[in-house]
Amino acid sequence: MIELIGLDGDDTLWRNEDYFTVTQDRFGELLGPYLPTGIDVQRALETTERSNLEVFGYGAKGFTLSLIETAIELTDGRVPAAVIQDLVGFGRWILTHPVELLEGVADVVTELSTSGRRLVIVTKGDLMHQEHKVAGSGLADLFDAIEIVSEKDELTYRRLLERAHVPADRFLMVGNSVRSDVLPVLAIGGRAVHIPYHTTWAHEHADHDGSVPTLASIRDLPAWLEARSPIPR
Amino acid sequence: MIELIGLDGDDTLWRNEDYFTVTQDRFGELLGPYLPTGIDVQRALETTERSNLEVFGYGAKGFTLSLIETAIELTDGRVPAAVIQDLVGFGRWILTHPVELLEGVADVVTELSTSGRRLVIVTKGDLMHQEHKVAGSGLADLFDAIEIVSEKDELTYRRLLERAHVPADRFLMVGNSVRSDVLPVLAIGGRAVHIPYHTTWAHEHADHDGSVPTLASIRDLPAWLEARSPIPR
Repeated sequence: MIELIGLDGDDTLWRNEDYFTVTQDRFGELLGPYLPTGIDVQRALETTERSNLEVFGYGAKGFTLSLIETAIELTDGRVPAAVIQDLVGFGRWILTHPVELLEGVADVVTELSTSGRRLVIVTKGDLMHQEHKVAGSGLADLFDAIEIVSEKDELTYRRLLERAHVPADRFLMVGNSVRSDVLPVLAIGGRAVHIPYHTTWAHEHADHDGSVPTLASIRDLPAWLEARSPIPR
Repeated sequence: MIELIGLDGDDTLWRNEDYFTVTQDRFGELLGPYLPTGIDVQRALETTERSNLEVFGYGAKGFTLSLIETAIELTDGRVPAAVIQDLVGFGRWILTHPVELLEGVADVVTELSTSGRRLVIVTKGDLMHQEHKVAGSGLADLFDAIEIVSEKDELTYRRLLERAHVPADRFLMVGNSVRSDVLPVLAIGGRAVHIPYHTTWAHEHADHDGSVPTLASIRDLPAWLEARSPIPR
């Protein structure tokens, strides 16, 4: 019996990665005039981001700093300050973008919140930005807890379950990232449902062995749950 | 009787503001050659920081983005990319600086942790950076909880006390910021002790009416506590 359902935020409840993808495309266009042809801007950005993760963490602020670093390095300092100002603007655009709930989310979260199970948002990234997204989602009151974490690893999930007083086998995590929402939860004895999003950040790419339940839409979650772990009437 | 003691992190347990002050001084020196004399760089930076707070939140990443914005705006875009690269380096320096506990902290926290009262760190800023500081302090195991928050206002303290199941009048907050550690706690019926730090960020400046207990050093906290709220033997 599933007692506690963890729902990932970015690209499970609301749109996120799309804003980064759009920004990366505009970043490439913006740098174009200052670079010889054939430079793989996206790849360079990805390398900078990865090496900055440990210090900057996840989220739009660290991403913006990585954009700036990449621009300066790739152009050997030839990038004008006006372009860097645009990059800061990209970061501000992501941080202030209104929350766009994904299709079906409002209905399903409302339904699950009255199902007798507890719900928790488990999301990572900039603290204040994630809080703004939770507030902007209009769903905060339907959740029993909001967990904004710096990394979704086994330790994070263990601590979360301790705080919630729920044994791992009564916890189900639902999200779009196999790396963050599925594998660490399975590793500590929990259960997971994968709901892929149409685009995944390279860093979050991971495969599971095919045995993880995968749903095409969050709309399918209540029925899946009722079939596997019915609430006793 | 005080059941729960909240301890602020930055400039109460460990050094913080000094790194920002040093950085601001170096920022002024770095921009000097690109500015007419008489420009108040610190004031311009402070204005940018304040207007960015709502979007960037507290912490070194938002601060770094504010440095970059201020540099571009003050110089009308004449600041070279190499200088901006240095500014990103300043941010990285703050984010990776080893934790320096303030004098007396290790002894006092150790003593308080065996006093029969619960201890919680209440700190704001970048999530991952604050986690690194808590871990780097070597004190994490002495605390019952670590609360990393985006703002220290009445709502934040109310939620913290709810989670801890402690009534406000059994909570004591200890910190260097009157604005963040003292006033909101008093407003919800809690108690507060002010331990001033030699330097305070302009944004955190606030006055209390003189009635708030003020200690010169955290070393004085155990005796103060024992005199006002003795543990029943």
